[in-house]
Amino acid sequence: MAEVEPDEALFLIRQEVSDLHAELPKNDLVVWTAGNVSARVPGRDLLVIKPSGVRYEDLSPAAMVVCDLDGNLVEGDHAPSSDTAAHAYVYKHWPEINGVVHTHSTYATAWAARGEPIPCVLTMMGDEFGGEVPVGPFALIGDDSIGRGIVETLRDHRSKAVLMQNHGVFTVGASAKAAVKAAVLCEEVARTVHIARQLGEPIPIPQSDIDSLYERYQNVYGQRQG
Amino acid sequence: MAEVEPDEALFLIRQEVSDLHAELPKNDLVVWTAGNVSARVPGRDLLVIKPSGVRYEDLSPAAMVVCDLDGNLVEGDHAPSSDTAAHAYVYKHWPEINGVVHTHSTYATAWAARGEPIPCVLTMMGDEFGGEVPVGPFALIGDDSIGRGIVETLRDHRSKAVLMQNHGVFTVGASAKAAVKAAVLCEEVARTVHIARQLGEPIPIPQSDIDSLYERYQNVYGQRQG
Amino acid sequence: MAEVEPDEALFLIRQEVSDLHAELPKNDLVVWTAGNVSARVPGRDLLVIKPSGVRYEDLSPAAMVVCDLDGNLVEGDHAPSSDTAAHAYVYKHWPEINGVVHTHSTYATAWAARGEPIPCVLTMMGDEFGGEVPVGPFALIGDDSIGRGIVETLRDHRSKAVLMQNHGVFTVGASAKAAVKAAVLCEEVARTVHIARQLGEPIPIPQSDIDSLYERYQNVYGQRQG
Amino acid sequence: MAEVEPDEALFLIRQEVSDLHAELPKNDLVVWTAGNVSARVPGRDLLVIKPSGVRYEDLSPAAMVVCDLDGNLVEGDHAPSSDTAAHAYVYKHWPEINGVVHTHSTYATAWAARGEPIPCVLTMMGDEFGGEVPVGPFALIGDDSIGRGIVETLRDHRSKAVLMQNHGVFTVGASAKAAVKAAVLCEEVARTVHIARQLGEPIPIPQSDIDSLYERYQNVYGQRQG
Repeated sequence: MAEVEPDEALFLIRQEVSDLHAELPKNDLVVWTAGNVSARVPGRDLLVIKPSGVRYEDLSPAAMVVCDLDGNLVEGDHAPSSDTAAHAYVYKHWPEINGVVHTHSTYATAWAARGEPIPCVLTMMGDEFGGEVPVGPFALIGDDSIGRGIVETLRDHRSKAVLMQNHGVFTVGASAKAAVKAAVLCEEVARTVHIARQLGEPIPIPQSDIDSLYERYQNVYGQRQG
Repeated sequence: MAEVEPDEALFLIRQEVSDLHAELPKNDLVVWTAGNVSARVPGRDLLVIKPSGVRYEDLSPAAMVVCDLDGNLVEGDHAPSSDTAAHAYVYKHWPEINGVVHTHSTYATAWAARGEPIPCVLTMMGDEFGGEVPVGPFALIGDDSIGRGIVETLRDHRSKAVLMQNHGVFTVGASAKAAVKAAVLCEEVARTVHIARQLGEPIPIPQSDIDSLYERYQNVYGQRQG
Repeated sequence: MAEVEPDEALFLIRQEVSDLHAELPKNDLVVWTAGNVSARVPGRDLLVIKPSGVRYEDLSPAAMVVCDLDGNLVEGDHAPSSDTAAHAYVYKHWPEINGVVHTHSTYATAWAARGEPIPCVLTMMGDEFGGEVPVGPFALIGDDSIGRGIVETLRDHRSKAVLMQNHGVFTVGASAKAAVKAAVLCEEVARTVHIARQLGEPIPIPQSDIDSLYERYQNVYGQRQG
Repeated sequence: MAEVEPDEALFLIRQEVSDLHAELPKNDLVVWTAGNVSARVPGRDLLVIKPSGVRYEDLSPAAMVVCDLDGNLVEGDHAPSSDTAAHAYVYKHWPEINGVVHTHSTYATAWAARGEPIPCVLTMMGDEFGGEVPVGPFALIGDDSIGRGIVETLRDHRSKAVLMQNHGVFTVGASAKAAVKAAVLCEEVARTVHIARQLGEPIPIPQSDIDSLYERYQNVYGQRQG
């Protein structure tokens, strides 16, 4: 187990990951302890993640744990989240990704239970996901099958959110905050499209319009992008 | 870019618009940054609106931005909301309107995804909207098609709320507060009528009764009207 | 307009009614200003009710208004709720009732939009309502038809809650608090039975069991009854 | 009625039970006073439970009541919850159980109204419940039929949650906190599976995978187990 010198950069990542966990209950994405956020430590083969089984109101920067990219504990007083191996796999195999979020948010998980992708019938989906939110394989904790399922499914899609069959949602992003945003919007579009479909069929959006929505949003939206 | 002298009237509008944004998350109309409120600056060809991509808890009167009625930035440290052109079009082409609100509130957006107007089967709808909440066209950001769609659809209805197809809701009002109220009530009736229809058909309200409800409510309700 | 001497009893009723209004948003029974609570002033032909069009966070004991049992304003700086005539009719024609609540709570109003009573398929309904929650007539504000519809419908039922067709819920009680409790439980059973029926038919509860539930709950439940 | 000397252990149990009641409204499992938590007093034939008809915000360690395992009041200023006999029966007949929770949480109660078990189609269900959440008999307060129904139904299942027909949910656990967690997760899976089934059939999880999920979660999850 490698010795890690505490330093400012690592402290800031601990703080960011701790703070971002507050978004999960605030946005009704989790109950009890059933969700977690991680971030890559820039320039090191390390990630910071939630400790296992600790409730959101008891989290703090110091309570966060540091793991290597095989999911082994490097620093921390608690065991890492039982989902750490999946997060670690993503960082190890996808260099552009610096944040990962896992939730069992209700409506997204309902789509996952049926193994059905969320069709792109909202401009918000075109903006954020650039198409459907796809379904990944059924996989158990214990080997790399969850992490591999995430990476292999998202490789073929613009979406940074994947519905893992019978399980829940994983989102990835260029930053941990971007992954949290994707988790929030994934649940919102899962809910809205579900409700739309309860009383009929949503109107499809032509692919060329989805392309326009995605291009604009990824390039010009917000204060700091583009 | 015109120089605007800071003055008391403009400060009060900034404050009003900033305060009214708090109603959006409070009433569960938005997630993340996906909604905005604007107000016309009385006696000037200007509007005050939310900056783009800033979260609701970080808003303040000073963070609001001022634009002209073509949607160009006049004053502000941030880029204006990407929906500014639609707001500006409404103010430019509808002098009686002094407030505009845009949300993707869940149930209203679900009706919008099916392109289906909300039928007037609740006395609350008769009171506030005087009939159905209509559907406007599918339109992309980038030209005046969203603004034009709002104005042309609402011109033919008593409703001050319009469901933009596959997109979300725009509401307008004699004040920004009135537009926020319309956004809150639009989501409430969208939800209630959706739920009613899940288990059968709501009973229609005769047109003459809708007329009575609308006349009374617009003229005698509340403390300051009529 | 009769002169009312301010006194301790009246102040306490103002306080109770003001405090109980906080239960409406807290229990998600209302949006904006769309709901109200009233209480009879003991020993006088008066009631205390919410002012019209004022938001819940702006209410205070002093803001409450006092009306006679024909709904006329007796004391207060604001106009009384536009539903005051319906409340007044109930107090005038039903001496045992000391509290009335009106909401447009979502699920109950959805049943009301279909004009369909909520069947008694939950022990909570047997406890609190002793049978179905019935539907009252469609009626407009302007004469005594809402108040009369409430009294005539509830006269034939154990339920202290009535779904007014296409409109919303009125509940009555031996106290204003009891009427608020009935409003809270009415929405809860409206929601639960709605959800149960979305995927099949709830199992009926035999009438003799409903009778047992109602008898026990009305006589032995809680700290101060029976 | 036996005299109980106040002592530290009992005080801590009162505090734990009082604190855990706050989880019920926080997790949207209850309205008004309709739910309760109890804990066994270690080494004594006693339990601590909520007083009847008292609202959650008025609870405190001192307000909790102590009963024997026949449900008789031993210590307390208020009458015990009307569900005390059911809690007491569980403690008397199931020595491994130290905590019991009762709620009418909405989605779980909707399954209970149809008398339909929740099928195990989510990994979260495999983890926590090891299979379906079963249905117990319809039973009235007044004899031991509710308590017996809980124990006899759960004896044949891994699940620590049971849906009592037309009534609500009881959960049991090795601690009161574990029973509260089961109540929170029961409502979450009731909601998610309900929503999944609204638009089609969830994909079954093979029994061998359910077994793997349950074994791992019960043995290695969290900080203090295994």
